Amino acid sequence: MLRAFNRCLKSCLGSFVLLVALTGPAGAAEVSVEQWGIFDVSLSGSTNGNPFVDVQFSTHFSFATSTVEVAGFYDGDGIYRVRFMPDKPGPWHYTTRSNRPELDAKTGEFTVTAPSVGNHGSVQVANTYHFAYGDGTPFRPIGTTSYNWAHMVDALEEQTLVSLVASPFNKIRMCIFPKHNPENTNELALYPFAGTPPKTWDFSRFDPRFFQHLEKRVGDLRDRGIEAELILFDPYDKGRWGFDRMPAEVDDRYVRYLVSRLAAYRNIWWSLSNEYDFNKQKKESDWDRLFRVLQAADPYGHLRSIHNGFLIYNHTQPWVTHASIQNGAAVEDAGRAELYRDVYRKPVVYDEVKYEGNIWKRWGNLSAEEMVFRFWQGTVAGTYVTHGEVVTNEQHTLWTSEGGKLFGQSPSRLAFLRRVLAESPATGIDPIDKWQDSNMGGKLGEYYLLYFGKQMLTSWPFELYKDHIANGMKFKVEVLDTWAMTITPVEGEFVTKKKDNYHFVDEEGRTIALPGKPYMALCIRRVPEPAGSSLKGPPPPADVPPE
Amino acid sequence: MLRAFNRCLKSCLGSFVLLVALTGPAGAAEVSVEQWGIFDVSLSGSTNGNPFVDVQFSTHFSFATSTVEVAGFYDGDGIYRVRFMPDKPGPWHYTTRSNRPELDAKTGEFTVTAPSVGNHGSVQVANTYHFAYGDGTPFRPIGTTSYNWAHMVDALEEQTLVSLVASPFNKIRMCIFPKHNPENTNELALYPFAGTPPKTWDFSRFDPRFFQHLEKRVGDLRDRGIEAELILFDPYDKGRWGFDRMPAEVDDRYVRYLVSRLAAYRNIWWSLSNEYDFNKQKKESDWDRLFRVLQAADPYGHLRSIHNGFLIYNHTQPWVTHASIQNGAAVEDAGRAELYRDVYRKPVVYDEVKYEGNIWKRWGNLSAEEMVFRFWQGTVAGTYVTHGEVVTNEQHTLWTSEGGKLFGQSPSRLAFLRRVLAESPATGIDPIDKWQDSNMGGKLGEYYLLYFGKQMLTSWPFELYKDHIANGMKFKVEVLDTWAMTITPVEGEFVTKKKDNYHFVDEEGRTIALPGKPYMALCIRRVPEPAGSSLKGPPPPADVPPE
Repeated sequence: MLRAFNRCLKSCLGSFVLLVALTGPAGAAEVSVEQWGIFDVSLSGSTNGNPFVDVQFSTHFSFATSTVEVAGFYDGDGIYRVRFMPDKPGPWHYTTRSNRPELDAKTGEFTVTAPSVGNHGSVQVANTYHFAYGDGTPFRPIGTTSYNWAHMVDALEEQTLVSLVASPFNKIRMCIFPKHNPENTNELALYPFAGTPPKTWDFSRFDPRFFQHLEKRVGDLRDRGIEAELILFDPYDKGRWGFDRMPAEVDDRYVRYLVSRLAAYRNIWWSLSNEYDFNKQKKESDWDRLFRVLQAADPYGHLRSIHNGFLIYNHTQPWVTHASIQNGAAVEDAGRAELYRDVYRKPVVYDEVKYEGNIWKRWGNLSAEEMVFRFWQGTVAGTYVTHGEVVTNEQHTLWTSEGGKLFGQSPSRLAFLRRVLAESPATGIDPIDKWQDSNMGGKLGEYYLLYFGKQMLTSWPFELYKDHIANGMKFKVEVLDTWAMTITPVEGEFVTKKKDNYHFVDEEGRTIALPGKPYMALCIRRVPEPAGSSLKGPPPPADVPPE
Repeated sequence: MLRAFNRCLKSCLGSFVLLVALTGPAGAAEVSVEQWGIFDVSLSGSTNGNPFVDVQFSTHFSFATSTVEVAGFYDGDGIYRVRFMPDKPGPWHYTTRSNRPELDAKTGEFTVTAPSVGNHGSVQVANTYHFAYGDGTPFRPIGTTSYNWAHMVDALEEQTLVSLVASPFNKIRMCIFPKHNPENTNELALYPFAGTPPKTWDFSRFDPRFFQHLEKRVGDLRDRGIEAELILFDPYDKGRWGFDRMPAEVDDRYVRYLVSRLAAYRNIWWSLSNEYDFNKQKKESDWDRLFRVLQAADPYGHLRSIHNGFLIYNHTQPWVTHASIQNGAAVEDAGRAELYRDVYRKPVVYDEVKYEGNIWKRWGNLSAEEMVFRFWQGTVAGTYVTHGEVVTNEQHTLWTSEGGKLFGQSPSRLAFLRRVLAESPATGIDPIDKWQDSNMGGKLGEYYLLYFGKQMLTSWPFELYKDHIANGMKFKVEVLDTWAMTITPVEGEFVTKKKDNYHFVDEEGRTIALPGKPYMALCIRRVPEPAGSSLKGPPPPADVPPE
């Protein structure tokens, strides 16, 4: 069974938000903030007119010879705020800019200190197909999906956080706009715009309380070591509130406002839309424009993607950092999963592969075995897979809609996968013999992960593809039962010997016994590790459950 | 067995090249040329200096209010020539332009007549994922590969043409530059540049005789109803002659010269390179530039593609008309083959899927069964597949290198596939239930092609995906043995009845008996054909062999 993670204690220390309240004349506060923490400048200003559109407010943050301009935002009640995530330790200073004198030319200094334990910075693309935090620590996504968990009552939201801490998930996909449920026409406590639900909105005024709540939940995730993949648009409004059919200038202002509020949270990923092509009110060129608005607004270059329904977006566009793909069929077979890598030359994340569940819709009735199988197919193909769960019974909510508790059988197996990945090469798992043996991923000459899926083999003759292999190299093998979550070392070492023009085998012709069950895998590592190997990487986190 | 095609007689009539030799002052020749034929203007001029670079020569061809400028070329011996492929019937006139007075301001008129039998114009993209000739006739590629067939002695080249006429192939991929064979250092009779082989070239002067020979062979293909996919660059020179490492301005001039000579041949496709990424002397940006040069030079917009080694080019670029992909693994499974369609939203042609053959290299030892299997997987995925053969024995050359005779067992089965496709929807075969049942392609509500591949079923319960289906629709079924090349109609009609939220079955629950053999398929057609159905399309050509 899965043991509770204890990430919270560690990372809470490193995640405090520093508030510098400057309500009087300009003054330099002698303060410090950790690297990749949030430095917050707030100023009092006028409430006249429409502060959301009339007031321009930004701040120039400078370190040595470089300066970054960060947009501020109006947070209600006469408070103007700018949030900044510094990426370098040392002395910084800032100067505010505004078209309102009371907000203009305020200056200050602060010191950025080393990040605390558990704070590795923001996740970025690494090694073309993979991810790493700002400090270089590999990030291997084991994501989940709970679209509306942050639109629930507090007790349920807290339950979701408890569930996440006990889960293997290190990323969650979540919508900003609420979802219309025809069977529940109750209104939510908060909406992103000022006005009266369902349809009387002042699209020129945001409701800061909505965003403050969102920020609290994003911070809650960060403090638990979980990346928050915010979905900026989605097709689930269906016209009830009209957030799916706002004028283009409102969409653009919403994106900029959101980014000005949230970009300083280091655990943010931007997903421009879920099932973007199901938003029938927008054209493809609208998404291109919104991507450019998003990219231009974000000082930190957080990850940017867009998730499809039936029509795949052109992920070769330069503003897309990685391919976020809905296609369950693609991870039924590693040979399929791999194809998108070649096309995009970017990380591929299968952000919807159907869900573990028991509903009649075919996107919601994967067995736990099938869900885990898809994660492994994606893994050996050098891609990443995201979990979802719609297990329904009379006692609980649907995880992927509302959060709450996880009832499925896949999360514990995904914790096992996470543990395996934690000991895999820091540079990521890539196909070993592309377009040939799609069930083997790893790092040539060092590390091989071989997944047999639904095959029920009783033995496997030791055999490695020729690249980076020479006669006489030694390897250790472990047999992994990905469902029973066991790791069984195979006795002795395997010594390579050339077999033919493509493969090496064991010099004594040894084979590896397998139990004739599905969902078995092998992990093959070179011994001793070659000099400069990345295999050791960081030690597996203590919070990953043992068998 | 395969019966000889008799395309030649029909299409030769429609393919004559009209030569208008204007050696004196400007004069209007009262001449005619058929639509999509070649109108040729030739003028005598100076041989001084370097006519390939010193002389500018083009011609404006006008029809009604539209004018197209077509570049001319120097054909040696003081002859300057321009070739034009008119795309509209009726009266045309032209005016030459040159920086040499003897080539400038010559005018003429000609009449474009209706195309003759067998002349359907140039192939273009149709219905996003498919192809059609200029007159709208569907073109369903059943391509083959013979890289150097046009660099052989005449007798062997003629043998290749004889083999093609007897084959199902309607497209051939062929290199322009010769291939270096380390075991054969004999020089060829002709090279594209003036000079002395292997390395003493004047890259500023072409050898027109080389191109005249190439044109003869392209015309031979056209007259046999075969599309000529010319491969402009390739990595097979390996530095012997240096055609793979010419300066950029020579590459550009070569592309323009080639296009000025050959674009008027209606059966031309341009493949910018084979295994482009194996050309280690060029960067990706060079290919982008060369594509733009090619696109700008071609007045007709012939199909443009580029073929990969390990690194797939960005086929989303606007100058790529269809994805030409080397990846044998992709057509081992229709679920893989289909994925590239979504990504590119263009036709996908698997222009190298390994070859039928018996050599030790793993790209050259597919069984005939496997080659045919891959064609069918690609077909039901809504894509196209290209054949190659490296069957070696002591009596003959390798088809895919040198042409000659076909010895494999796949071509007759591909003729069977061609016959099946000839009766498929004119709009092309598309996935029926994308990302779900990848082994079924067709046209919703009208036509379904279901391929069982290596499964050896003894029955199949009649079942169709819900889209475009209602209760009470009637269908006829044929059982296809794609290897034995038989078509067996199933008695009676199947009448649809809703089964569940996704599928319809036969109202009497009928199943279709299958022989428990691999490589079986079903063809399911609605009866009577719905009004406006494209199913009838053109009648299957008489030259496709019966069972």
